[in-house]
Amino acid sequence: MTKLRVVLVEPMYEGNVGSVARAMKNFGFQDLVLVNPCRIEDFGSAMASHARDVLQMSRTVSSLQEALEETNLVVGTTGKRLEEAKHHLRQHLRVPCLAPWELAEKLRGKDGTVALLLGREDCGLDSEELAICDMIVSIPTSEKYPVLNISHAAAILFYEMSMIENGSCQMAKRESLLLLQDRCKSLLQEVGYPQHKIEFTVLMLRRVLGRAELTERETRTLLGIIKNIRWKIGIYEERDPPGFEKR
Amino acid sequence: MTKLRVVLVEPMYEGNVGSVARAMKNFGFQDLVLVNPCRIEDFGSAMASHARDVLQMSRTVSSLQEALEETNLVVGTTGKRLEEAKHHLRQHLRVPCLAPWELAEKLRGKDGTVALLLGREDCGLDSEELAICDMIVSIPTSEKYPVLNISHAAAILFYEMSMIENGSCQMAKRESLLLLQDRCKSLLQEVGYPQHKIEFTVLMLRRVLGRAELTERETRTLLGIIKNIRWKIGIYEERDPPGFEKR
Repeated sequence: MTKLRVVLVEPMYEGNVGSVARAMKNFGFQDLVLVNPCRIEDFGSAMASHARDVLQMSRTVSSLQEALEETNLVVGTTGKRLEEAKHHLRQHLRVPCLAPWELAEKLRGKDGTVALLLGREDCGLDSEELAICDMIVSIPTSEKYPVLNISHAAAILFYEMSMIENGSCQMAKRESLLLLQDRCKSLLQEVGYPQHKIEFTVLMLRRVLGRAELTERETRTLLGIIKNIRWKIGIYEERDPPGFEKR
Repeated sequence: MTKLRVVLVEPMYEGNVGSVARAMKNFGFQDLVLVNPCRIEDFGSAMASHARDVLQMSRTVSSLQEALEETNLVVGTTGKRLEEAKHHLRQHLRVPCLAPWELAEKLRGKDGTVALLLGREDCGLDSEELAICDMIVSIPTSEKYPVLNISHAAAILFYEMSMIENGSCQMAKRESLLLLQDRCKSLLQEVGYPQHKIEFTVLMLRRVLGRAELTERETRTLLGIIKNIRWKIGIYEERDPPGFEKR
């Protein structure tokens, strides 16, 4: 089953936080994490209306990394128009950029927690935050006024995501994917891959592995292969607890 | 091409009117009609943000009938949960009740103006208003908190309706459909149909004709048939300008 975690990154207006909480409850979601939010007082609570419980259960954290713990997939949002965003993101960050119904289609039949990141009201998510994302979703809008209110964008995404059919294909844990990326990078260094190409190649590997939509089991297997290679070339270090890959 | 007219029926909060205007412009719509609205001042305007022009171009009317002039299809919204609304509306009003994507599917390839009615924030559209509608749309929500904020519901509907592919199948004018209903009713009276069954039968005919999704040409032809019948039974009155049905 796909579970949704809504992550608001540095929201500026409490009314919007409340409105997002309400829309979450309207579509059956309740896992809300706030990264360095504004103060949420009476107006935010009023906008949440009968979803005050979602606000009360929300967690406040001080870093995006912390908000992403124990998730399987990170989906960013952008206020850029879909076509423009697709061009920009594919050119510069090589992140797949999807329309809401394409995201829903991708998630169909999967099992895991999806973090949906919504950025600041004035400038959205920054490049560094977008680069962390496995996918970006953008709502097709009019070029005359493409920028949706954050809670409207949220409501539309919740609407699409509430219709995803449940599945049992367990997505890889984010921690395992990060470990795999880290091991790939180390391996490149260890086998004498040209130093100046490493960053780019790691990014490419990350996108390739992202598109492959790895399961946890597949990720473990890939980690096992790297362990074997490292052992063969004599660089195996006892960095993991024994038998890590077999868990 | 399907054109959308957004009709807010007695909206109570100016902030919501502004938010709906913004969402309209986000999805490329601009025809806004307000039926007996609250006063719209600074806060409403602020919520419209860069869509103040939509607010400024909006028309204020004092009756729903006036708001529906020159439309082809009237679509109501309900805050009831889809399943519940389907049951209620089919039982009591016999209005087709659709999910947003079903509505979009229905409108694909059509040409005409669709009035989308959004009711009061506290109690929505009343039974009489719903009975006027050709179709009802309901957004599937959680049973724990089914009531969406009006501008969230609007944004989701605009999102779906902005994706409708253009078409050239000219829908019948609302005025022609109302005339047809009126003529059917008169005809029933004129042919001695049992008086106590007339109201119900007219409603049934209206739903049947509604489901048939008549074009303007088909409506004119049906009016012509009724004219012939009336002429044959000797009750033809010069109520129309001559040649009306041929226009």
